[in-house]
Order: sequence, then structure tokens, then C-alpha cells
Amino acid sequence: MNTADLGLPVDVPSTALFTDQYELTMLRAALKAGTAERRSVFEVFTRRLPDGRRYGVVAGTGRVLDAVENFRFDEDVLRFLREREIVDEATLDYLAGYRFTGDIWGYPEGEVYFPGSPVMRVEGSFAECVLLETVILSILNHDSAIAAAASRMASAAGDRPLIEMGARRTHELAAVAAARAAYVGGFATTSDLAAGFRYGIPTVGTSAHAFTLLHDRERDAFQAQVDALGRGTTLLVDTYDVTEAVRTAVEVAGPELGAVRIDSGDLLLVAHRVRQQLDELGARDTKIVVTSDLDEYAIASLAAAPVDAYGVGTQLVTGSGHPTASMVYKLVARAETADPGAPLVPVAKKSSGGKTSVGGRKWAARRVDGHGIAEAEVVGTGPVPAELADRQLLVELVKGGEVTARESLDVPRDRHIAARARLPLSATQLSRGEPVLPTEYAHRRSGS
Amino acid sequence: MNTADLGLPVDVPSTALFTDQYELTMLRAALKAGTAERRSVFEVFTRRLPDGRRYGVVAGTGRVLDAVENFRFDEDVLRFLREREIVDEATLDYLAGYRFTGDIWGYPEGEVYFPGSPVMRVEGSFAECVLLETVILSILNHDSAIAAAASRMASAAGDRPLIEMGARRTHELAAVAAARAAYVGGFATTSDLAAGFRYGIPTVGTSAHAFTLLHDRERDAFQAQVDALGRGTTLLVDTYDVTEAVRTAVEVAGPELGAVRIDSGDLLLVAHRVRQQLDELGARDTKIVVTSDLDEYAIASLAAAPVDAYGVGTQLVTGSGHPTASMVYKLVARAETADPGAPLVPVAKKSSGGKTSVGGRKWAARRVDGHGIAEAEVVGTGPVPAELADRQLLVELVKGGEVTARESLDVPRDRHIAARARLPLSATQLSRGEPVLPTEYAHRRSGS
Repeated sequence: MNTADLGLPVDVPSTALFTDQYELTMLRAALKAGTAERRSVFEVFTRRLPDGRRYGVVAGTGRVLDAVENFRFDEDVLRFLREREIVDEATLDYLAGYRFTGDIWGYPEGEVYFPGSPVMRVEGSFAECVLLETVILSILNHDSAIAAAASRMASAAGDRPLIEMGARRTHELAAVAAARAAYVGGFATTSDLAAGFRYGIPTVGTSAHAFTLLHDRERDAFQAQVDALGRGTTLLVDTYDVTEAVRTAVEVAGPELGAVRIDSGDLLLVAHRVRQQLDELGARDTKIVVTSDLDEYAIASLAAAPVDAYGVGTQLVTGSGHPTASMVYKLVARAETADPGAPLVPVAKKSSGGKTSVGGRKWAARRVDGHGIAEAEVVGTGPVPAELADRQLLVELVKGGEVTARESLDVPRDRHIAARARLPLSATQLSRGEPVLPTEYAHRRSGS
Repeated sequence: MNTADLGLPVDVPSTALFTDQYELTMLRAALKAGTAERRSVFEVFTRRLPDGRRYGVVAGTGRVLDAVENFRFDEDVLRFLREREIVDEATLDYLAGYRFTGDIWGYPEGEVYFPGSPVMRVEGSFAECVLLETVILSILNHDSAIAAAASRMASAAGDRPLIEMGARRTHELAAVAAARAAYVGGFATTSDLAAGFRYGIPTVGTSAHAFTLLHDRERDAFQAQVDALGRGTTLLVDTYDVTEAVRTAVEVAGPELGAVRIDSGDLLLVAHRVRQQLDELGARDTKIVVTSDLDEYAIASLAAAPVDAYGVGTQLVTGSGHPTASMVYKLVARAETADPGAPLVPVAKKSSGGKTSVGGRKWAARRVDGHGIAEAEVVGTGPVPAELADRQLLVELVKGGEVTARESLDVPRDRHIAARARLPLSATQLSRGEPVLPTEYAHRRSGS
């Protein structure tokens, strides 16, 4: 990687250690057994959506591509693995030259998914694919969980913009990924400067209660903020008495005041009162921003309130009750050799204890009705039925180790809006329910 | 920082952008208003524990110290802030020379806390302290949430070791911090190699179902693993039929087989059957490791089962239902000037809409009964009562900008065990309840 990139506070020089130890011990054993080079197909999917959710949102794909590209074992890492005796010399030799040379296909970022959807497929030797399990799952499970919550909030907010402000409620780098996933899911801006720096997401923010408390009078704080940031700024009006603060705010900034922010109390009631007061004071264009432990339900309940924007923190970065997706990364087929022509044998865990999988290398397509509305997620092995050929969901992401599908973050954001719009209307109901599309399996029968 | 450290995959060159934009706009306005240098005291505390929890666990303190030390605005960052017009030139000048020069005190890492406990106190100019809000909260809120879950799981597990294996269920760098927090909370090992590399936490891991599926027969997979990793390895026995796998495992490895892992099914039932089978096969010292969506309740329910170690993933890294603590960072006192001798004025948000705080610079002490068992968390302003003088909880962490309290990770781990042992017995009940200690406020009355 470009060493200049080391200046970026959210990059890491290598992603190779974001890996569970067992990936390396499996590699070690497979190298010794001569099975490490067997051509293999791994798939990422989930057996279920979070309880009550209607659809999932694929997010993090772009970050996965970065991670795969940066997956390298440098000297420091190799020394660590040697000293800890995690792997043997043969494995260290393999790792020193590691570079993913296989293919990755997947649902494009922003697309929706359902139980069984093969959201990502990784093909190559067992050795090169197995090592990527942990980092791919970390990224997709985290980012997709956040994007799913963001999408529900965006549905509930309608045309009103959503501000992501949850950095303080999650790990400092998870926060950057959360802001990115929130943007994919429909948020407009973030408070997180690292997310603005790294991903170009628009950033916002004006002041906290501390700023008012720093000054001798609320009026002094407002004056200081307007002097520095202009009349278009957003003044926080709930440090002492909201009514008095709104009056002072308009006195200080005039009717050109950009917005007031309310961060506590009964937001429905207070928003109505503040709107009325602002209108009476002639500040008809001054907006109202609310920010207090909002989730999609609270946002929906404010639909009729005179609110212009929502700031969402905790509930966004914790996935609104579901902080992780339950995607898994499973070997679904492998050949006897490394030969690209060797036939793939479908494989699957078969224990009676649950967690069984469907073997075989899969395609997926979304069948639509006569109005273009989705009616089923169809997942299959073998040839794709002709009527679904142009409804396929997996796209090429990496070919022969080279990333082929980079895109700017607005692309998955727009894609998500389009994909959600083609789901049945019940998709955006906030109430708990079944996945809005059934998953149908169209497997090739043996011998057919 | 040492550029050699850039090789570490979990370090970042600067933590300055892990910051909400409003910290910088507040700074900008305060610089212009001439209030930025006012001596200020910020405190970190929570108004409540997660619903039903009996105690909190302070974790992340060591990471906060790293973050404060690395909080620098380099050229790339300053350029970003200038281009986005987030701050003005005067603020950029201030940021270019930024270096925290104040003092930080706090509960030592691993200590328990309760609602209102001032777990960290940051003192300096308003300007230098306000900038640290977001990154300090990100770290403490995330790490403390994980450590609290870990502590409950460790209580439930008793003497049996816990393996942290949740990396795939959370952001790849949150995973590293989660492994660290889990260790502080009582876990023994982690699967996450980056956590082993960065923090020296012991790492473990052997194989997944994919390794069995890669091979033509389960026996081949077991043989390959034993050949590479020795008879002391842990074989995963639930890919096909558990009984058959256990028989094969002992045939391949002999009675010296280290352990078998069960990752699905009714663990209580299966563990009993497997133990009986292993004993009948003469593999009396072969251990049983269980790993399947465990949480503290599942661990407790296996107390009577013949299980030797637990692997915990999802529920650990998501805080077992509470993925974030709700700590806040509030200005509690400030002077009129930068003069160290200027009197501090207590300040607090007073709006009727909730979220009120207690003003004033605080001390905290844990009052104990005649048997040394804690009976109250006492928080106050003003002089510390003589009888509590040697029960104080805050310790110096940073003095004049220099970190004074670095410690190896075993110290907070041991401290947590000791602190928890001095709580009333009901602290380790898993059932929902009130905080096990009441928080008492001992505030100096005006004029006293």
C-alpha cells in the first residue's frame, strides 16, 4: 500500500491479523496434508434475519475489498506468529507470499438480502480463501447491521434528513464504519470527522451543553457561537429553559437563525411549542433539529411534529437492538485438486444439532411480478433458469485477485433506495414480522 | 509517536479525528469569544446502568491514555478541516500545536462503577478538554460494555476458562478492543490474532467445519490436524455425527487427545454423552470445549455439565444485550480565567427535560462494612470526610499532559476480580435487579 496513506487515521497497514487463529492452524494442517490447494468455494449468508426484521441491507462490501487488498503478512506479523508457535516454518513461508489471487462475487453494496441469500462468494484455493473468513465476516456483519437500522430510520424519516451522531457510543473505528454504513442506508450527514475525512461523508455539528455552561450567561454563549459561525448556525436551546432560550436565540441571531436543537424532554410537545414560538418571533425559516435517544419508532412518532431533521446516535451505532448480523462463511464446494477444471463437490455440515447449510456453488435472483415488484428471492445451484437470467444478484467484485468493482459511496446509497423501492410495501412497516420476501431454493437434482 | 509502531495493525497515527465536529466548532467559537482558556473540569459518568445490571466495569482506561497521547492534528487533517471550512485560521493555528497539557484522574481500569460514579475527570483549559470528549466516550462506552458482559460470564463460568471468539461478529478493530476488555473482565484467551499481537493476550484456535469438509473423510481431516498440531489439539466433532466423530477422534489421536469441541446442538445433553463416550474410550483427560451462541445464562446452565471450557462470541462482543455503556462527558465546573488559582464555579444543565447533572468537581469513595464488604458508592464535592479518605476511588492517570499510570493488562484483570469480590454477594446474581450498591451524594452545602 501507499505509505502516504499511513497518515489516514482510519487505515491500517495490514488487515491480515484481523483473523481468528484457527484460520492459520487449518492452513498449517492443510499444507501438511497436501489439501491446502484444493479449489474451494466459500459463501457468506445468514440463516435468519434479526428477529422481526423484514429485510437485510448489504453494507461493507467496499471495505471488504480494501481488506482483501491489504491482507499481507509482513515481517512483524510473521515474527509474532513464529514466536507464539502458532504456525510452522512451511506455513510462515506460505504467509510471507500471501496475496489473494481468486475471485469474489457478491450482492452489490446497498442491495437488500434475505435468509439464505449468498451475499458473497469467495473462490480460490482453500488456503487463500479460508484466511479471509474472519475479516470478511467482521466487516459485513457489523456494517450490514448498522445499514439495516439506518434504512428503517430513513424510511421512518421520509424526506427529512438524518444526522449520524453515534461515535461516542461505539468503538472509535467502528464509529467510522458505522457512519459509512448509515450513509449507505440513507443518512445524510455524520458528526464523525474521521468518517468525513476517510469517506467524504458530509459532516455537521455546532455545539453542546458544555459550551453554554462555559459562558456566564446563555446569551453570551449564543452570541459567541453566532459571532464565530454566523446566523445560519444551530443553537442548542435546552440547557436551562427552552422558551427563554428560543427567545434569546432569535434576539441574538435574528430571524435568519439557521436552526435550534432540542436534545431532551418530550420532543413532540416541545417541537410544537418551539415552532409556534419561532413563528411568532418571525423566525419562520428557522429549522428545528431533534436529537435525544431517537430510534426508528421515535422518528416515526414525530412524523406529524414540526421537526426538520433528526440526529441519531446510540440506536444507530448499536443497530437498533441488533448490533450484528448473523452472517456465516461456509465452505460449500471444493474440488479434489487445484485444477480449475476439476469438478466441484458440494459439501455441507450435516450434524443433527442445527446449523446445517446447503451445499453447492449458488446463484441468486430476485423474481418480480408484473409491476416490477419483488416476489421471491430465488437461490439455486446449477444452471440459472432463463426467466431469471437478467434478475441475477451476484456481481463480480474481484477477479484473479484484482478488485474490479470499486464505486463511490453514493452508488450503494442510491442502489439501496432503488432496491427497497422494489420490495413489497410491507417492507417498510416498522412492526415485527417475517422477511418480506420468501427464499425459494431451486437446486439442481442429482443426475439432472 | 514511534513510526515503527505503524507496523502494528491496530495502531493509528493520530486519534484526533475520532471527534464529533461540534467539538471543533465549540472550540472555534470559544477562541473567538475569549473563553477557550477558561480552566474547566469535565467528568465522565453514567446516569444509569444497563437495565437490570448490578454493577459496571471500567474498561478502556489504558486505551484512553494512548488516545490522549496520540491526539495530534497533522498537516493532512488540518488541510481537511480547512477545505471543509469546519474551522477558521485561528482555530487551525490552535489545533496545529494541540497537545493535552492538563490532568486526568479516574477509576482505575477493572474497578467497578455505579450510577453517578465519576469514572474519569479531565481538567485543563476548556479548549484542550472539550476536544477529547468523543474519543474518550467511544473508548469507555464500548470497552466498559464488553467488560461488564465478560465479568458476568466469568462469574457464571467459575473456574472454567472462557475463550473470546467474537471477532467475526463485530467491527474488525472493535474486536481487538473487545478481546482486551474481555480479558480485563476475566476471559482467559482470545481467538483474535490482532489482540494477541497488540496486547499480548494468549490466543487459541484449531479448526472449523470447513476443514473437515475440505477432506474426503472426517478421519482424514482429524489425521491431518493431529499430524500438524499434535495429539494435544482440539478436534471439532459435530460436522456429521458426534458419536462417530468422537470415536474416530480417539482412534486417530489416542487417549492423549487434548480436547473435542462441540459447536451445535443441546450442549448439556451432548456434553454428558461425549464425556461418557470419551471415558469409555479411555480418553479420561480429553477435555470438552463448547462454543455455540453462549451467553452468561447458557454458561450458568452448563455448570453441572462435564464441560472444561467455554468459547463465547456474539454475546460477548455485543455486550450480552447491552453493546454500549451510557457514559457522558459533562462540564461540571469552570473558572472565569485560565489562572490555576481562579475559583471553580460548579455548572450543570438545568432544563426540565431530563438529562440533568450534578455540578461541581467530585471525589468518590466506596464505603465498606466491618467485614470489608462494600455498602455504598459515595460521591461528593468539597472535602472528603476523614472516614472515607483511604477509600477513595479516583487515581491519577495523566499529570500535566504526561501519562503517569500505565500498567500491563494483568493488573486491571486482577483488580477487577478483587473489586468484584468485595461487592455484596448479590452482585453476581445473573437475574435482573437494582445496582448492588446505592450511590450516596455528599455535597458541600453552599457556604459550609
